[in-house]
Amino acid sequence: MSTAWKSRYSQRTLGVKSSTIRELLKVTQRPEIISFAGGLPAPDVFPVKHFEEACHKVLADHGSMALQYSTTEGYEPLREMIAHNMTRYGIVASADNVLITSGSQQALDLIGKLLINRGDRILVEAPTYLGALQAFSVYGAQYVPVDVDEDGLLTEQLDSCLRAGPKFMYVLPNFQNPAGVTLSDGRRHELILLADKYGIPIVEDDPYGQLRYEGEHLAPLVRLDRQNIRRDNGFTLGNVIYLSTFSKTLAPGIRLAWVVAPEDVIGRLVLLKQAADLHTSTFNQYVAYEVARNGYLDQHVKLIRQVYRERRDAMLHALEEYFPHEVTWTHPKGGLFLWVTMPGGTDSQALLRSALAEDVAFVPGDCFYAANGHEGGRHMRLNFSHSQPEQIHEGIRRLSVAVKMQLRSSHVMRSGLSRVEDRQLS
Amino acid sequence: MSTAWKSRYSQRTLGVKSSTIRELLKVTQRPEIISFAGGLPAPDVFPVKHFEEACHKVLADHGSMALQYSTTEGYEPLREMIAHNMTRYGIVASADNVLITSGSQQALDLIGKLLINRGDRILVEAPTYLGALQAFSVYGAQYVPVDVDEDGLLTEQLDSCLRAGPKFMYVLPNFQNPAGVTLSDGRRHELILLADKYGIPIVEDDPYGQLRYEGEHLAPLVRLDRQNIRRDNGFTLGNVIYLSTFSKTLAPGIRLAWVVAPEDVIGRLVLLKQAADLHTSTFNQYVAYEVARNGYLDQHVKLIRQVYRERRDAMLHALEEYFPHEVTWTHPKGGLFLWVTMPGGTDSQALLRSALAEDVAFVPGDCFYAANGHEGGRHMRLNFSHSQPEQIHEGIRRLSVAVKMQLRSSHVMRSGLSRVEDRQLS
Repeated sequence: MSTAWKSRYSQRTLGVKSSTIRELLKVTQRPEIISFAGGLPAPDVFPVKHFEEACHKVLADHGSMALQYSTTEGYEPLREMIAHNMTRYGIVASADNVLITSGSQQALDLIGKLLINRGDRILVEAPTYLGALQAFSVYGAQYVPVDVDEDGLLTEQLDSCLRAGPKFMYVLPNFQNPAGVTLSDGRRHELILLADKYGIPIVEDDPYGQLRYEGEHLAPLVRLDRQNIRRDNGFTLGNVIYLSTFSKTLAPGIRLAWVVAPEDVIGRLVLLKQAADLHTSTFNQYVAYEVARNGYLDQHVKLIRQVYRERRDAMLHALEEYFPHEVTWTHPKGGLFLWVTMPGGTDSQALLRSALAEDVAFVPGDCFYAANGHEGGRHMRLNFSHSQPEQIHEGIRRLSVAVKMQLRSSHVMRSGLSRVEDRQLS
Repeated sequence: MSTAWKSRYSQRTLGVKSSTIRELLKVTQRPEIISFAGGLPAPDVFPVKHFEEACHKVLADHGSMALQYSTTEGYEPLREMIAHNMTRYGIVASADNVLITSGSQQALDLIGKLLINRGDRILVEAPTYLGALQAFSVYGAQYVPVDVDEDGLLTEQLDSCLRAGPKFMYVLPNFQNPAGVTLSDGRRHELILLADKYGIPIVEDDPYGQLRYEGEHLAPLVRLDRQNIRRDNGFTLGNVIYLSTFSKTLAPGIRLAWVVAPEDVIGRLVLLKQAADLHTSTFNQYVAYEVARNGYLDQHVKLIRQVYRERRDAMLHALEEYFPHEVTWTHPKGGLFLWVTMPGGTDSQALLRSALAEDVAFVPGDCFYAANGHEGGRHMRLNFSHSQPEQIHEGIRRLSVAVKMQLRSSHVMRSGLSRVEDRQLS
């Protein structure tokens, strides 16, 4: 009987629970729902035609290689392209500094495997990417949360947090998931100074860096790292592991992402990846390389920026139009998400139930916090990349109905006693 | 500096070392080498044309779905197809009993994560699949090895081994990697009786089951399991987790495999997979389904059987022709490998160096054993699926040169003392 298995589960399975988002995604597949819940790229900007041409070319020219087993490190031309793109940030990297992973989620899993012993503390933003919490929790991570505001994580809180000696910091500096905020240039420098002072390394997760809709690109932490060594033509890698992905610029369904790190870190991650899945799909690596090369990726990213900027603006306008004045939200300069803050005492899980009754969905804020005792219940994460502008407008209208109802009912609850008394008197 | 990372590696990385095979595969990419080292399917039987048609159809009909994020469990029609195929073994399974994984290596990693606490003992065949040892060792597994002969693992050794209370048994009943042997029907029944007696569950790894070149298909352990419950239309799942893959029947470069297990096991594996890589490539799942459906997979497997049977026979004939009489080998009824046994005292790592000088490669037997103190040095694993028959003939000829040299030198060493005395006397 299957209970023979249950009694044998490892301690690793204890802390792991299903992601609310993934469960939500199932509900939100009902066609009448307008969903701001997922982190889904817009399917209408997938370069389907280019994928088709690339599949044809790869199978015609390299069929027997592209369908065969390949090295754990990844397809060499793809790794070279990624290493070359790091020169944009002034970083000197070679293919030996690059590991191809099956999505960034696998990079997080391998980093957790490589670095976390049960009970180790990891410094994270509060809120932070849910998938990272899931990946690290499997290995028994504890968390040191640092609050964020519109300029990213509050570096003023860092000194005391770093003194507690976390194993590493996990940071999303650009258009952070879920809050949509960007770490300011000043705070990036402060963060790097403190990392250096306390000798705490950094995992920099940058899935959205290319998707900036306004303002200037800011130097990534991997570039500012004071442990980098200056060379004639740029900087070598030191204290930062840098992650990025094709999920938001090409398509997530091919599960292709990468790690850029010092060679000894890559070497260790390769051994762990070998044991985890041998290597990432050879075919997908060939196809992605074929789609991305000759500057097509950069050109395609321009289109995505244009489409997503329009959608972000549609959401910001609709929020202005429909949402009550007690509610505030972030103004993301890029990425896929914005973060809504409601008055204290709001219950975003209850709000979600009302919202689903209005055929609109979002992710409640409490999913994105490592520990209890936070104010996640006041927040919701809204995705603006997946829906068309007119859907966004209608979805925000529907959501505003649920929000107003919720605010009314929490107001009723707060003033409940006096009203009951009123009624008794009348 | 990168040493900041080194000092932070987890205990998990201690037991993990690079697979000799993977390192070998790099050497054996030299074109002049005839390699019997990898476990590579023959690229000349990849259904490249069908892949091309499937890619075209999937992108034209389902582009926006196939390139998007999808559920962790896997593409439903593919899971249904796999569940349906289990009825061949008399098993009643639904899509809810199936999890799609990124190759069987990921299935082994997730099973390790799910079941193994540091220090847990796992019963394995000696020799066994190297990738399983790598996957389980990450989680701190210890091993209880059971010897194998031409009829698979020696069930006469099982009773005492099971009394030691291993967490589970990991068994490859069909055309085992590396030894190429098949667990006999009688021993399958004995194994299942003992598993039931001691309450030890089984992980049955069956990548090659479809690739039988002679004799009758034997019932898999998942079918014989005494914990199954009989129903009108077959048996439900109980005490066995069953693994298989498209790597040997379609192509390994798409990294597609599956787990069939009771629903509560699948549910737990889904949570761990969610944290490990969200899901397996949506695109590859759509494409594989499109290639496999309407009976094409079965038809294609017939072609593979024919090609591989011819290659196995070519290798058996060449071994007869060239190898010295002190050397023996298994006669695999299917799969990709055969196992060569040399006289005691042979050093297969030294033999490999001589073989590479003759431009031929194999994997030394000691790679496939969990513990020290075995006689792995006497063995080599030869793959017969990847090379053409004439290459196999030439490769075995070259290898025989190295083998004879090695046997001579180990003979010289054994009789070294007396010869030195001879020389001193002369």
